[in-house]
Amino acid sequence: MVFSLAEIAEHIGGKVQGDPQHEVNGVATLLKAGGTDISFLANSKYKKYLTESSAGAVLIDETVLDLVSTNAIIVQDPYVAYAKVANLLFPPDISDNSTHPTAWLSPDCDCHASASIGAHVYIGKDTQIAERVIIGPGCVIEDGAKIGTGSRLSANITVCKNVVIGKNAIIHPGVVIGADGFGIANDQGKWIKVPQLGSVVIGDDVEIGANTTIDRGALDDTVISNGVKLDNQIQIAHNVTIGEHTVIAGCVGIAGSTHIGKYCAIGGGTAIAGHLNIADGVQFTGMSMVTKSIKKSGVFSSGIPVEPTAQWHKNVIRYRKLESLTDRIKQLESLAKD
Amino acid sequence: MVFSLAEIAEHIGGKVQGDPQHEVNGVATLLKAGGTDISFLANSKYKKYLTESSAGAVLIDETVLDLVSTNAIIVQDPYVAYAKVANLLFPPDISDNSTHPTAWLSPDCDCHASASIGAHVYIGKDTQIAERVIIGPGCVIEDGAKIGTGSRLSANITVCKNVVIGKNAIIHPGVVIGADGFGIANDQGKWIKVPQLGSVVIGDDVEIGANTTIDRGALDDTVISNGVKLDNQIQIAHNVTIGEHTVIAGCVGIAGSTHIGKYCAIGGGTAIAGHLNIADGVQFTGMSMVTKSIKKSGVFSSGIPVEPTAQWHKNVIRYRKLESLTDRIKQLESLAKD
Amino acid sequence: MVFSLAEIAEHIGGKVQGDPQHEVNGVATLLKAGGTDISFLANSKYKKYLTESSAGAVLIDETVLDLVSTNAIIVQDPYVAYAKVANLLFPPDISDNSTHPTAWLSPDCDCHASASIGAHVYIGKDTQIAERVIIGPGCVIEDGAKIGTGSRLSANITVCKNVVIGKNAIIHPGVVIGADGFGIANDQGKWIKVPQLGSVVIGDDVEIGANTTIDRGALDDTVISNGVKLDNQIQIAHNVTIGEHTVIAGCVGIAGSTHIGKYCAIGGGTAIAGHLNIADGVQFTGMSMVTKSIKKSGVFSSGIPVEPTAQWHKNVIRYRKLESLTDRIKQLESLAKD
Repeated sequence: MVFSLAEIAEHIGGKVQGDPQHEVNGVATLLKAGGTDISFLANSKYKKYLTESSAGAVLIDETVLDLVSTNAIIVQDPYVAYAKVANLLFPPDISDNSTHPTAWLSPDCDCHASASIGAHVYIGKDTQIAERVIIGPGCVIEDGAKIGTGSRLSANITVCKNVVIGKNAIIHPGVVIGADGFGIANDQGKWIKVPQLGSVVIGDDVEIGANTTIDRGALDDTVISNGVKLDNQIQIAHNVTIGEHTVIAGCVGIAGSTHIGKYCAIGGGTAIAGHLNIADGVQFTGMSMVTKSIKKSGVFSSGIPVEPTAQWHKNVIRYRKLESLTDRIKQLESLAKD
Repeated sequence: MVFSLAEIAEHIGGKVQGDPQHEVNGVATLLKAGGTDISFLANSKYKKYLTESSAGAVLIDETVLDLVSTNAIIVQDPYVAYAKVANLLFPPDISDNSTHPTAWLSPDCDCHASASIGAHVYIGKDTQIAERVIIGPGCVIEDGAKIGTGSRLSANITVCKNVVIGKNAIIHPGVVIGADGFGIANDQGKWIKVPQLGSVVIGDDVEIGANTTIDRGALDDTVISNGVKLDNQIQIAHNVTIGEHTVIAGCVGIAGSTHIGKYCAIGGGTAIAGHLNIADGVQFTGMSMVTKSIKKSGVFSSGIPVEPTAQWHKNVIRYRKLESLTDRIKQLESLAKD
Repeated sequence: MVFSLAEIAEHIGGKVQGDPQHEVNGVATLLKAGGTDISFLANSKYKKYLTESSAGAVLIDETVLDLVSTNAIIVQDPYVAYAKVANLLFPPDISDNSTHPTAWLSPDCDCHASASIGAHVYIGKDTQIAERVIIGPGCVIEDGAKIGTGSRLSANITVCKNVVIGKNAIIHPGVVIGADGFGIANDQGKWIKVPQLGSVVIGDDVEIGANTTIDRGALDDTVISNGVKLDNQIQIAHNVTIGEHTVIAGCVGIAGSTHIGKYCAIGGGTAIAGHLNIADGVQFTGMSMVTKSIKKSGVFSSGIPVEPTAQWHKNVIRYRKLESLTDRIKQLESLAKD
């Protein structure tokens, strides 16, 4: 794919400074870009590379224009502009309307002719595969599942019974959607299974990272709303609901029946207890421990970062002595009063 | 499936209040249940919904009987009763005694005729698949593995060489049982592999959640005892042993050679160091950090939950100054003595 | 496989004490070893079992020779020696030069005749599979991927487009290499995808544990250097680089663009923030929280281990009162000055 800077500027709503007929066919960092690449400055830390960059063009905001020694396209948000240009030059795979000879579709799978079904795929009964869906090698789509228009499932993904996935989902390898939630009841010392009779409903434009798991609901459904973006190895328990456009980084665990609002941002490694309500717009920094509901938007954190191990040992001991420390202060205060 | 309240009461050992001939075929929450559904009250938080529920019947303990305006079945533990009723109305899948045409079984696999083998399954040499086992699409059963009567493996599961799984296991997608433990020895700066020659032995009635991994032992076996219930994305290292009826929530990691007792309950996100002994009946709340053995049953916790980020910053700094704080108190104490 | 102690001693550079013609064909712990097994003492905790062991021979260092009542091979590092002996007696699987009839290789896959391709494997276009590679059942190798000589991929692994894997890799089930990194840009409240155009490059002699995920780079590549050993369920984000011979235990998460040095050792459950530099030789104990770069080698820790829940509650409250505690000390100090 080759585009002139004029074409790109039109696509992203920017203004060319330099030669609008200059053509690019690649993207690269400021340091590595050559004459047919377009680059960008989104982080002021890399400003020093702007002047010396050999890029064919750079995407910048107007404040750094005087540092540029090549062609530029001036935009409001260079990172968003870069994302759009990269999608233009490197569009995602599209369906080739084929079914691999090793795939197995149940006779009553309602699979649109424009879908692409990969090698060793299994698709169960009463399933719906909509237009332009791509289902990559090794995926298992169980009975009753529905996958919406334009969704792309890469490889070795499991979509369990009756799960509903909206339009334009991007789902990465190893993802499991709709396995049983962790429902057990203690019958005189022995755990018995509580059947998980709800499902999972996933909205439109959702992305789900590799090896993430989303459990089906116990009675009602687990819900992932439109525009939610999930990174790798996230665990979402039964009956969790996640509001629109919330983003969650890798290795987060969310326990059962917790409701996460819209436009939240959850840092990697965070653990959120069950039956909580997290308000819209809440942000957690990485490795947060969330045990109570949060009623208003804001940024929240927990955890004490590393220190040299010898010092860590001492601080843990001091922490455990906080009670006696407090008592000693009380004692001093009572002396002071005398 | 349709059952009368009389039939259900007999099945669960309860007592009908109202019309014993009333029939139900579904389960639902108090709020959503209709006339042919049975519901339950297991959490007093939802007591307010009892009176207004349109359920055909409710499972309750006798203390709330006067709040009920529909049929009721009085039981000792409504949640256990609910689990039993849900299993009655929605029994798990049973084997259809078929082998999918795309499955591949090694000639010397000892596979019972009543088992069901799904699409694109691979089963290796010297394997045993017992009566009524279900092996879902995409599963890989390596050489020498044995799977006990009535066990159900859903999809895309890997059971490695010589692993032994007991009766009535329920194993969810993406689980890996018997991959090599993390055994390395440092040979003058270069890590060399220590062969992992043990296996994994899993007892009866064990459930294993999606994408959980259980490593094979280095020399002896890794052991998961009868009745253990594991949630999703748990990591169990080589030579761990887990006692009967212990339950472990999602995202827990247990390092090598640690022994967990019976009837333990381990909260989500907990990390347990290697070579420890955890007594029977120990409970850890979510995100616990366990670095020492625990000799008696009890409830244990760690971690400081989130606070607004600005305050968190300040508290971390104060934590790191605990030493000087202690010194200042000492100083005051010595002054006070003068 | 059967070897005399003389043969073994020669292989590992040790010295036989006792009968050099004694033959062994197995390995076992001191407690379980019989006359045809060889055992070892690597941890002084087990010294008490040395005298009573029925092993055919033991691998020891010379300091414990007088405790031994059977044949011995004296070596400098008994654990390294054990690893070498175990590899000798139980060599890893080797390729059987066969392609399973259910495997699907794209016509232009450059697959060496000595490779072994398992059941239901899919290999895409423009791929290279080198000599003696083993690709186990259910693996998916996407277009353009290259797998180096002698590498072994067990089962249900996904290697995404253009990923490069070096020689002698050992990759366990469920691993995903080269899924898209988590790249999103906020376009006026809506997240848009940033195409992930880099790849993953994995060096020689790398081991990767079950269900670990390694994302492809955004523009440049994610890099795992020679000799790196990764345990299970590790998440490595886009553009992370990991230096040679670094070892990482299970459940670790490393956020985007962080660089980890050589010869590091990272304990299980550790979370490392993005855009950091971790020096060579750094060690983190388990469950560490790493939010800043570390410039010199050393051992670092964080986290407060569990305590009984009632006490934990009190300590958390005291922690949150550290500010008022400090104020009270200030107050006392100002009184003391008067």
